[in-house]
Amino acid sequence: MKKIVVAIGGNALNRPGELPTAEVMKVNLQSTMRYLADLVEDGYEVIITHGNGPQVGNLLVQQDIAKDAFPPFPIDVNDAMTQGSIGYLITQTLSNELNRRGVKNPVACVLTQIVVDRDDPGFQHPSKPVGPFYDEETGRKLSSEKGWSFVEDAGRGWRRVVPSPIPLDVVEIDSLRTLADAGVILVAAGGGGIPVVKTGDGIIEGVEAVIDKDRASALVASLLGANMFLILTAVDYAFLDFGKSNQKRLEKLSTTEAKTLMDAGQFAKGSMFPKIESAVAFAERTGKDAVITSLESVEEALTSGAGTRVYKG
Amino acid sequence: MKKIVVAIGGNALNRPGELPTAEVMKVNLQSTMRYLADLVEDGYEVIITHGNGPQVGNLLVQQDIAKDAFPPFPIDVNDAMTQGSIGYLITQTLSNELNRRGVKNPVACVLTQIVVDRDDPGFQHPSKPVGPFYDEETGRKLSSEKGWSFVEDAGRGWRRVVPSPIPLDVVEIDSLRTLADAGVILVAAGGGGIPVVKTGDGIIEGVEAVIDKDRASALVASLLGANMFLILTAVDYAFLDFGKSNQKRLEKLSTTEAKTLMDAGQFAKGSMFPKIESAVAFAERTGKDAVITSLESVEEALTSGAGTRVYKG
Repeated sequence: MKKIVVAIGGNALNRPGELPTAEVMKVNLQSTMRYLADLVEDGYEVIITHGNGPQVGNLLVQQDIAKDAFPPFPIDVNDAMTQGSIGYLITQTLSNELNRRGVKNPVACVLTQIVVDRDDPGFQHPSKPVGPFYDEETGRKLSSEKGWSFVEDAGRGWRRVVPSPIPLDVVEIDSLRTLADAGVILVAAGGGGIPVVKTGDGIIEGVEAVIDKDRASALVASLLGANMFLILTAVDYAFLDFGKSNQKRLEKLSTTEAKTLMDAGQFAKGSMFPKIESAVAFAERTGKDAVITSLESVEEALTSGAGTRVYKG
Repeated sequence: MKKIVVAIGGNALNRPGELPTAEVMKVNLQSTMRYLADLVEDGYEVIITHGNGPQVGNLLVQQDIAKDAFPPFPIDVNDAMTQGSIGYLITQTLSNELNRRGVKNPVACVLTQIVVDRDDPGFQHPSKPVGPFYDEETGRKLSSEKGWSFVEDAGRGWRRVVPSPIPLDVVEIDSLRTLADAGVILVAAGGGGIPVVKTGDGIIEGVEAVIDKDRASALVASLLGANMFLILTAVDYAFLDFGKSNQKRLEKLSTTEAKTLMDAGQFAKGSMFPKIESAVAFAERTGKDAVITSLESVEEALTSGAGTRVYKG
């Protein structure tokens, strides 16, 4: 039995321009889960991870709008809420799809806390975009009124950024392993996990951040001993000189080559960079391959080598 | 090893008059979890369940206030979000308390969907109070503007009510059993579970409702083969003629006696009634005892028989 961790992209839930309703997310997930059900049917032990950037950002804005009625929650509690909402929708749509095919594996979502370092420089330099896009004027206004940090995101407008520290350990790893070993298809580390810090005596405490979901997924995949780590995105391959006339797709990439290309600024910071970085982290830690590809090519990535495959070397 | 399901009351999270902040819930849970950590330390396999009435109601109001920015989620998705937020806070405070004592059991929260019947009469007669109390004028206004159903709750004001169907099955029961058997202390069926209905071919689908947490907990306790089911509330015992000068505490109560007293209108509908009913359901299904008592008396209930003990007979 091959264990694989599959990190699904934001498009699996909500595409640009769509309303962020539960109904829309459910419809999108129904098509996403057909591809992942193929993998379960092929006999893979699948652990699904997902992001929460738009959803947690929407919660933060929603709570800010309603703040005279109810005090807003800190980001860690909001991360937990998105594990609840998104985890529920994934669990339900995947188990329905498996049921339709007569595949009997149970599906479960485990709330996942992920340990980060209190001194992580990410806390000083918020970098993870969350929530809706604003025009420049609104962005500047919110920045001065709320003290929120903003970046201009890929030409689409202003977007709030929150700290994104490096994930170090997974609090619930033993429970995840127990369930995976029992044949349960898992939804875990949603939104990159709920970020917590550990004090000297092992006490854990939530912190206000959103961990990058690909980094968190690479950690989960390493700790669970996954045979392969798949990062799903909008493209079938990572590219050299992406978006230029001479762009060239990357099929096999050693961790050494990948790091050289990262240093050379080949991959967009908020987009392909953390995926390549996470693929490298997994391959280096485990000696196993990580693949970056699209949802549509995920089965082919496992059977005939589609996608950008990062190997230790 | 004795397996027990402990349903904690609303006071464990938020007491009347307190602000519903994460910080307040965390402080309350810290004292609650000391009592539950005693049970884990005594060697019990503990499964913790909890309600979500105030929290899910607050989410519904919050989303209504912010509805021009983001479309509100249906109640099932909000139930899932409260499993996330409350489950996270319980998991973290309990595992910290266990850690302080050197107790090594891991703690995990599993999102839990609970099957109800689409034709349950509960859908026609909303009865579960959720969210904040309103004065009569505001209640009437919201009722006519939003079509929400309201009841006057125990003299404290008007409160929104939502459907509360009877729980029939637990979707994630195998995963819960696997983890409990592996020594994991569980948080499950939060807020009475996420309510789903099952179509003829086994497909599940969320429905807008809030299942009573004591009823859901009795079901979880029965299905997991718990040796005892503990329902925690604000009082050490259920009482005959509660609140009257001749009130008499109930120490042992057969399921037959309990049903006679329920029929005689002895227990308040929104309060002690569902607890007695759930205790009876567990005792009848399993032949094992259910106990209604306070958090402060929970250890004594297990060791020296404190609390109202409902037995099959």
